Amino acid sequence: MPEFFHVISSDQLIQLLSGFARLSCERVPLDEALFRVLSKDLVSHEDLPERMRATMDGFAVLAEDTFGASESIPAFLELTDSIPMGVIPEFSLRTGQAAPIPTGGFLPQGADAVVMVEYTNSVGTRNIEVTRPVTVRTNVLERGEDAKSGETLLLAGKCLRPQEIGFLAALGITELKVYRRPRVAVISSGDEIVPMNRKPELGQVRDANGHSIAALVRSSGADPIVFDVVPDNAGMLHQALGKALSLADVVALSGGSSVGTRDLMIEAVSGLTGVEILAHGVAIRPGKPTLLARQMGKAIFGLPGHPVSALIVAQVFLAPFLRYLQGGKLEKGPLGPRTLMALATSVPSTIGLEEFIRVWFEETPDGIPAAHPIFGKSGMLSTMVKANGIVCVPMNVEGYSKGSVVPVVQL
Amino acid sequence: MPEFFHVISSDQLIQLLSGFARLSCERVPLDEALFRVLSKDLVSHEDLPERMRATMDGFAVLAEDTFGASESIPAFLELTDSIPMGVIPEFSLRTGQAAPIPTGGFLPQGADAVVMVEYTNSVGTRNIEVTRPVTVRTNVLERGEDAKSGETLLLAGKCLRPQEIGFLAALGITELKVYRRPRVAVISSGDEIVPMNRKPELGQVRDANGHSIAALVRSSGADPIVFDVVPDNAGMLHQALGKALSLADVVALSGGSSVGTRDLMIEAVSGLTGVEILAHGVAIRPGKPTLLARQMGKAIFGLPGHPVSALIVAQVFLAPFLRYLQGGKLEKGPLGPRTLMALATSVPSTIGLEEFIRVWFEETPDGIPAAHPIFGKSGMLSTMVKANGIVCVPMNVEGYSKGSVVPVVQL
Repeated sequence: MPEFFHVISSDQLIQLLSGFARLSCERVPLDEALFRVLSKDLVSHEDLPERMRATMDGFAVLAEDTFGASESIPAFLELTDSIPMGVIPEFSLRTGQAAPIPTGGFLPQGADAVVMVEYTNSVGTRNIEVTRPVTVRTNVLERGEDAKSGETLLLAGKCLRPQEIGFLAALGITELKVYRRPRVAVISSGDEIVPMNRKPELGQVRDANGHSIAALVRSSGADPIVFDVVPDNAGMLHQALGKALSLADVVALSGGSSVGTRDLMIEAVSGLTGVEILAHGVAIRPGKPTLLARQMGKAIFGLPGHPVSALIVAQVFLAPFLRYLQGGKLEKGPLGPRTLMALATSVPSTIGLEEFIRVWFEETPDGIPAAHPIFGKSGMLSTMVKANGIVCVPMNVEGYSKGSVVPVVQL
Repeated sequence: MPEFFHVISSDQLIQLLSGFARLSCERVPLDEALFRVLSKDLVSHEDLPERMRATMDGFAVLAEDTFGASESIPAFLELTDSIPMGVIPEFSLRTGQAAPIPTGGFLPQGADAVVMVEYTNSVGTRNIEVTRPVTVRTNVLERGEDAKSGETLLLAGKCLRPQEIGFLAALGITELKVYRRPRVAVISSGDEIVPMNRKPELGQVRDANGHSIAALVRSSGADPIVFDVVPDNAGMLHQALGKALSLADVVALSGGSSVGTRDLMIEAVSGLTGVEILAHGVAIRPGKPTLLARQMGKAIFGLPGHPVSALIVAQVFLAPFLRYLQGGKLEKGPLGPRTLMALATSVPSTIGLEEFIRVWFEETPDGIPAAHPIFGKSGMLSTMVKANGIVCVPMNVEGYSKGSVVPVVQL
């Protein structure tokens, strides 16, 4: 039976992953930058807005004309022409006047606040009553209040959401520098593995990892390069790895579920020129026979051959690493929103192994949801399909009792 | 000032949206089905596994040979040949024997359980001691335990994650039927709006909505078709809408921030043949002047022109609607993980308006994070950029006091 000479903790593996350099950068058009990470600070070259604008529909006024106004003793103001959207008013507002103005409209000279339409009453067509006072700068945006020329808008490391895309468009930033997307070679190995479109013969199984890992790579913002299944042959494995390293930034090789093939994988990886084996064996369940190596600055993940183990290891380490390479922070996976839930049954765990327990929960509008551990056989892919959460039981914890409130990562 | 004749609640608008039919379906290759939604139940045509397999590294045994085994009185078994991965053993296991087997290996005839390697000791090269008993079927997967021929694997409406992709690959399901991705026409309108690559003249502003809404559409799994900015001209608006409806499944038109242009938008939409205005005015802040119309079964969203309002309305209604059209459930947005947080300051709100308050929070490993309301002027796009959460204050709630624990949607 296999022995691991140097089983490390998951935190140590994350530490090792943090030793890899992030990818280089590239300039992309703004509209292609969604969910990409800025590689350098972005500085504004303009003031936004360029001059004082209303933030509410209402009336541009001199604030002091409204001081003391109330429902019982309103301020009485004379209407000027309306200010159309996008027009710089040519007139100046004098004391006692109010100019109808839309949200976003430019205030006339003299005006220093906007009264919301809700706090006014019409008096004929030429006048209004103001029933609440406003102070100077109420309901207006001053020049440069949204963004100032020379100001840092966004820091390097910021992941761009739709709101950042809109903000940068408003400032005329049509291109920006972001981290490159990783290319990931995905290789399944094993004599018993056949491509998914072939009918397996007795003893054979279809390749699941090539597809699930490629999908996880895609969902991590990276581009998979899926290789043909490699048989248990050191030469062919070595050749595939060489090709993978020439094409990709990261290699995710799965296989080696039995002693012989596991030796084969480590042999093939070790045979690469200038390779460094960083880890062989991680104290997690499932996923103990995980391998991490580095060649020419590129990471090679040796994932277990077993589909459930391979996917969990990829969720715990590979997906966060791909986010990190693209500028994100490196944190142990699975990535996803974390919510506190109460365990519906006790969860046993082994001291010395960090366990990733699949759970199922129903969302509740309020209160703490119940998480049901899925105790089907660990080898069943269907348990991964049933699960919508993962509970991590740390290495030094001997399980959780029923009712314990624990963090659950939603998958 | 504008009046809305028939302001409805956000729940009523969601109700109206649920009246639209989902999109039609299409067959896609499995590897392109990530995060798509199944449009019909998927049934297995095979048993998985095809025969009994080990789920742990260890020894295939007859369970009854281990009954009563303990550390002090272990069961003593004779080793047979190892079972290689993917090989159907040709021998039968007899009582008193144990066959070394890898995770995923096929059990020999006669064996009915697997003892984990952790609960055995080697005795020379030909024998082992078993220090814990196993019951029948321990650490094995029986034929069809993962998936049975004829069994429903996944129900219509299921969104496919990497684990489903791997599961379906293992079962040889290489193509499947999913809902089509919506095409969304994104149109910004307004005389004062210039494309983002043009330097605005005095009074002009760059188009932000065309980019932020397109990005939101992309992040909702849909494909934006971005139109050139349309000036405030009923004829041109009408023409753009006609083209949009011929190309897209949904139209997202933003603009109409001032009275005149708002009338223009409703006029242009009303002028479409066979159009039905479903809503004009929604009791939310920001976003009150929202318009919803239907023509030939297609939805037309009239979003406010103001970039902050337009994006929030799109987050609250458009993004969930796009998920719904693709087979997801329809729920009011913003979509995102919801976490309970404590408000760092009081939040005032107006009775009769549902308010969406931008907040900022720092993630905490445990405990309830503090959510800091962002009280910058509502018109500032930079407040959307600073925010990483939204608190919704319902229509009938007059704000929340400091320290209130409320659900926050993470953005």
